[in-house]
This record gives sequence, structure tokens and C-alpha cells, in this order.
Amino acid sequence: MRIYQESFTKMQEIVNDYTAQTTDFEIEQRVAEIIAKVRENGDEALKTYEEKFDHVKLAEFAVPKEKMVKALAEISPELKQALLLAKKNIISYHKRELEYGFIDTDVPGITRGQKVTPLQRVGLYVPGGTAAYPSTILMSALPAKIAGVSQIVMVTPPQKEGIAAPVLAAAQLAGVDTIYQVGGAQAIAALAYGTQSIQAVNKIVGPGNIYVATAKKQVFGQVAIDMVAGPSEIGILADNSAQPAQIAADLLSQAEHDKRARAILITDELDFAQKVDQEVEKQVKLLPRREIAAASIAERSFIAVMDSIPEMFALMNSVAPEHLEVQLKDPMQYLSLIQNAGSVFLGKYASEPLGDYVAGPNHILPTGGTAKFSSPLGVYDFVKKTSFIQFSQDALAQDLAAITTLARAEGLEAHARAVESRFKN
Amino acid sequence: MRIYQESFTKMQEIVNDYTAQTTDFEIEQRVAEIIAKVRENGDEALKTYEEKFDHVKLAEFAVPKEKMVKALAEISPELKQALLLAKKNIISYHKRELEYGFIDTDVPGITRGQKVTPLQRVGLYVPGGTAAYPSTILMSALPAKIAGVSQIVMVTPPQKEGIAAPVLAAAQLAGVDTIYQVGGAQAIAALAYGTQSIQAVNKIVGPGNIYVATAKKQVFGQVAIDMVAGPSEIGILADNSAQPAQIAADLLSQAEHDKRARAILITDELDFAQKVDQEVEKQVKLLPRREIAAASIAERSFIAVMDSIPEMFALMNSVAPEHLEVQLKDPMQYLSLIQNAGSVFLGKYASEPLGDYVAGPNHILPTGGTAKFSSPLGVYDFVKKTSFIQFSQDALAQDLAAITTLARAEGLEAHARAVESRFKN
Repeated sequence: MRIYQESFTKMQEIVNDYTAQTTDFEIEQRVAEIIAKVRENGDEALKTYEEKFDHVKLAEFAVPKEKMVKALAEISPELKQALLLAKKNIISYHKRELEYGFIDTDVPGITRGQKVTPLQRVGLYVPGGTAAYPSTILMSALPAKIAGVSQIVMVTPPQKEGIAAPVLAAAQLAGVDTIYQVGGAQAIAALAYGTQSIQAVNKIVGPGNIYVATAKKQVFGQVAIDMVAGPSEIGILADNSAQPAQIAADLLSQAEHDKRARAILITDELDFAQKVDQEVEKQVKLLPRREIAAASIAERSFIAVMDSIPEMFALMNSVAPEHLEVQLKDPMQYLSLIQNAGSVFLGKYASEPLGDYVAGPNHILPTGGTAKFSSPLGVYDFVKKTSFIQFSQDALAQDLAAITTLARAEGLEAHARAVESRFKN
Repeated sequence: MRIYQESFTKMQEIVNDYTAQTTDFEIEQRVAEIIAKVRENGDEALKTYEEKFDHVKLAEFAVPKEKMVKALAEISPELKQALLLAKKNIISYHKRELEYGFIDTDVPGITRGQKVTPLQRVGLYVPGGTAAYPSTILMSALPAKIAGVSQIVMVTPPQKEGIAAPVLAAAQLAGVDTIYQVGGAQAIAALAYGTQSIQAVNKIVGPGNIYVATAKKQVFGQVAIDMVAGPSEIGILADNSAQPAQIAADLLSQAEHDKRARAILITDELDFAQKVDQEVEKQVKLLPRREIAAASIAERSFIAVMDSIPEMFALMNSVAPEHLEVQLKDPMQYLSLIQNAGSVFLGKYASEPLGDYVAGPNHILPTGGTAKFSSPLGVYDFVKKTSFIQFSQDALAQDLAAITTLARAEGLEAHARAVESRFKN
């Protein structure tokens, strides 16, 4: 791995270079065409694109419900048990995210409140092939279910051999109502605008390739979207109280996802940095996905050696990593130093994959520096708020002068007259 | 106004026609060019665009802080008092939106939690000229302030005669740190990517014209944005217990905003519909902004006569209006029937402009049907969440089999090995 020993300012520049975004207009244009065609020709367009891109000829999109139920019996008992444990913990964690609104009657004659309402229909995008992770289905569908969403649909590219049993089983366990075999930008268009056989949803969530991400961005506004997800990342803050072999293993657990994944260690000792580097070199060779992991380590990852623990945290806040491990002694004390991170793993035993699977917090997290302003997927993503007020005539009279003054200062005479009409005849 | 007496299904089709979105590729392309130029040339590009679009030659962008302070003394005492009342009520309402995260220690050896962190820097867009509403500055800056944002900057197009005193005064009252005189897509680009004199922010909020809206959509992902705002809307549910003159006045209070604004009345009696229509015709002629209001009423507004109160609510849920007035007897009873609306005004005295100015709930609201999945601007828009976990070795041991089973089922061997490394040596 590249090991940097630079000033804080220099390191910040290096970090910022990693996060700047660009737009690919050729892809934008192709995606826009696909969306337009789906809006125009509905199911017909979906079938044409599926034949072209996924080489599958479909008679219909929906997977029969019996197949989902059957899949639960087909998977191994160990896998079923693991999915059930994950489900249990995801539910117990996410229930704490429920919001209940409020009502404020502090002032006589005035009621002010906020009502929380679940979205009606939500669409989950699940990538095809080896990237169709059963765990991700639990992570996206269960928060929607807890929020009270009435209809949860899932789209996923059709597979020649049919959709894998673990995927169907996870969808069944998570309460997905219908699975449609359609993927790519065309699936996003169908979810946003609806076709003859797929009803439009209010929000689309879940990761996908560049076409899916671009399509999500283009339909944003017509429907809500979760975020535009990029490659996975791990940031680790560790000093020499940590074991190099464990740190290396954790770095590699994200590097194996994608050649563009990022694994970053920030530490305060060059010697420790070198030990971790040696372990990474040793362990990466033994991995089934070594080609991917090695590319991520060589091209997208680095170790930075800083002067102090506060500086380590400050630099990591500039990275704003999707996953952040704090492998320092008594790690809970540092929580206040963490400004930007999707999910934090404190101490030796909170290895990142624990959070990917069974701990309970969501594993759909902000990437590419977006943890500066985005949150993990949560129950709050599947509700929206509505404010409400009720005033007595006396209460309105108290505010009358202020309202008409502001309305007229803004040149909005009809606003002033609407309120004044309550005091006529 | 157009009065419809159609079936529920037919009315739903009519409503859906009003809400479908389209993309204008010419504008997309021009905005993309502006953003690229600002990223490349920074301040230089901003100055060139301001000269071209706003015909103002700028030496520097920032408004001196003294000007903001001075403006507070320049506005009338009535306006200052009105702004102070609005500020007080906005703060007392929005404080209830504060979130505090949680910590869950139900299972021995396991700590799971969620930390709520304010965004660091936020940018407010304020349109120029007559659309620079002081009230909107309070509505966007105060929730950010309550959330704990450390730096709140505002951008607004330069004006030949300088920025109006009420705008500067509102910014000062709301705690805006710096105002930059720059508008349009170039202002959004500067906030998203930063220039020599404007530091990049984490989120951009506030309404603007089509160029501003398009630019916000294009920089989404680099920064967070609030929503892509469209023209204002009011939906009113009323029966003949309401006074036609008041209903008409409320419809016109939104119609005067914009020729593309929408005013919709849904009622259950044709006779009442006709009376409101007559009042609208009468009152619109007397308004200073009658040309705008008349266009909105003629082209974008309508009255629908339905068979029952539940049907009235069901149709209004399809509209998903920005503002919803319930002018029915004992209106609080209907709260559960409201699925989609930005802000709700219950009963005779909750005329919509009351909410625009002093009631306290936010007036930056989802438009164009986006209330199906979006919320009013709130304190929650200026914070983000980070989950965290800490596990004991025993607790991790309990979950080991489930983690490695899931990791290997998903083909992610390095994930399994990272957790297993905690039980070696």
C-alpha cells in the first residue's frame, strides 16, 4: 500500500482529490433515452431492453409468489438461521428510528403539530449476478416495513437460470410484496413512471451500476431516491495497540468488493503502518477475489501517518468514510471527534463485516464523501412529515398586523387580504 | 375557474396530468457548461457570468457585515417587529424537530447507537428582485441554526441598487454568517465546488428559477440539496359551511405568486363551487398582481365537485398539494385522512398566509406532487446520522457462525476471514 507521511494540509489535498465527482454526458444521454422510451412504450420497451442488455426474453416480469415461499425451504438451514438472526437485530435497531410527530398546544387558541406518514409504495433495486446480496435486501426492505410502507416491490435483472434462491428467500423474509425481473436504467424508469404491469412508486432505494445510479439521479424529483451510491470504503483509525493482521484483514474485507473500493488506514506510527502493509501483502494473495482486492489496494487505498490522535480524526473527517473503524484503546471516548462517517465500529471486536450482516444498524451507507451530509438508510427514509396548524379567531387577531405587514412588504397583497377576510362581516 | 363534475377515476387522471415532470436538455446542457466553467476558473467565471446575466460588475462578492447590521436599523419598526415575531414562533416550532440519537445496551456485551451531527456548512439560495422574500430567509436559516450548523452562507443575485434592506435585515436576524452577491447556476456551482472566495458547503437549500433548480439537481451527490422546487400550490377542501369570499381569497393568495401557481378547490356541492368561482372572478380584478393571479386561475387551477368527504380527501391525496386547507366543520377529525400534503391549515382562521409568515411551521414545502415523498424543510434537513457499534469478544463469538455463513453465501471470503481473525492467537 502507498504510505504517506505528509503534513495535514497536504494530506487533506490528497483526500479531496479522491472525492471530487464528475458527470459522464454520454451515459447521461443514453440513460435519458432509455427513460423516455419506457415512458412512451411501457412494458414493450422494458422487454426490448431486457432482451438487448440481459439477453433474456420475458413473458412477464413478476416472479410468482410461490417461488419466493419455496425458496425459503430450498436454502440451507444455516443460511436461513443466519438471515433470521440478521432480521431480528435489524428490526430491534431500526425500531428505535421510528418518529411519532408532535402536537404543541402551549399557546391558548393555537394548535401546531407535525404528523409522520409512511410512504405508500417503495421500490428496491437489487443488482444482478454475484452482486445480488441477500443481506442488502433485508437492509432495505425491513426499514420500509417498520416505517409502515404499504407496498414494497423489488426489481432485479433477470437471470438465465432464474433468480437465486437466497435472494428470493431474503425478499420473502423481509416482506417484499412483489419481485419484478427487470434491471438497469429501464427498471428505474418503470419504478418512477409506471408501466402497464409495474405501478409507479414514491421512492427508489438500493445500489446499482453507473446506469442505475445515473437513472436514479434523472428521475429524482418525480420520485424520491436514497442516494447515488459509489464503491465501498473503509477508514480505520488505529495505533500500535491494534493487531496488524486484524487491521489488514478488515482493510481487505472492503477491498474485495470492487477494484474501485477504498481502504484507508490512518495511524500515528510509521512502524505500525509498515507492519499492516506487510500483512495486507501477505493476506491478499490468499483471497479468492485477490485480483479485485489487489487492484483496490494498489490504486485506491493508502496509509497515512499523522502526528497525533486528534489529527488522525480530523483527516478522517475529511475522508468521511462509509465505514469507520476506531481501533484505539477505550474507543467510545472518541465519539465526539467523529464528524463525518456512515457507520462507526468501535474497538477490536467490531470488525466491519459484523455490521454488514448481523449487528443491526444499516449497511446501506453514504459513500464517496457524502457522509458529510447523508445518513445510513433508515426508517426515516420511508416516512415524510406534514405540519399542521389550527388557530382561534382571537389568536389570528393577535398576529394580524404582523402578517399583513410582512405580506405587503413582500408585495403580496392577496396574502394580506386573505387573512383580513376573516375579520369582515 | 374550470369546474369539473367527473367520476373519481376521471378526476385522478386529470390530476396526474398536472404533475408529470419533464427534462429540458437544452437547459441541462447550458447549466452543465456553467458549472464546468466555475469549477475550472472559480471567481473569474463567477464575475464573467454576473456581468453577462445580471449586468453587474463586481469587485468582490461578500456583502460587508456592517451593511447587514445597519439594515436592521433602516427597516420600519413594524417590519422589524413582524420579523421578530416570526423568528420567535419559527424557533419554538422547529425546536421540537431536534433529534438526539439513541444508545441501546439491551444485550450484555453489545452497544449499538446512533449519533446525530449537524452539517458543517450550509448555503441558502435567495432569488433576486421582487422574489427575495425576507420571510423565506428566516424559514431556511433558522432551522439550520437550531440544528447547530456552524456556518450559514447565503447567495443572491447582485442588484444595481444593492440588496434590499429587508433582505439584509432578515439575514442578520436569522444568523446568516456571510452573504455573497452571486446568483443563478453559477452560484450553485460555487456553493457545490467552492471558488477562491466562496468555500464549498455541504448542502444547498432554497428556491430559484429553472436554471437554479437544474443546477441543484446536477450538483446533487457532490452536496446535498433540499428539493427541486416548483410553482406554489394551494388545495382547499371545503363544504358549504365555509364562506365563499374567504375561500376565494385564499385561492388567490397562492395564485398571485406565479402564472404557473395552482389553486384547487375540492368540494361536495356544485352550488358552493359556483359561489366561490364568482368570488374569485370578483376579487381577482381588485388585486395589484391581477395579471399573474388571473393567468394562474385560468390555466392551472380548477374546482372539482365530488360525491363525499372521503372522496374529496382521496382526490386531494392524489394532488399532494404544497398547502392544504381543510375548511370543514371540526377539521381536526380529518387528520387521519390526509396522506399527502406539505402543510395543513385546519379551520376557518388558519388562512394559508398565516403559515407563510408567523405561525411557526416552515413555508418551504414540497411542490408538484412531491409531498407524496417529501417533507417541509426542517431541522432534520441540517443534521445527519451516524450509527455505531461496540461488541465484546463473547458477543462477537455468538454471532460468528451467522456472519461467516452469510459472507460465504455472498462470495465474500475476506469478510469471513476478517471476523475470524478476532479468534486467532
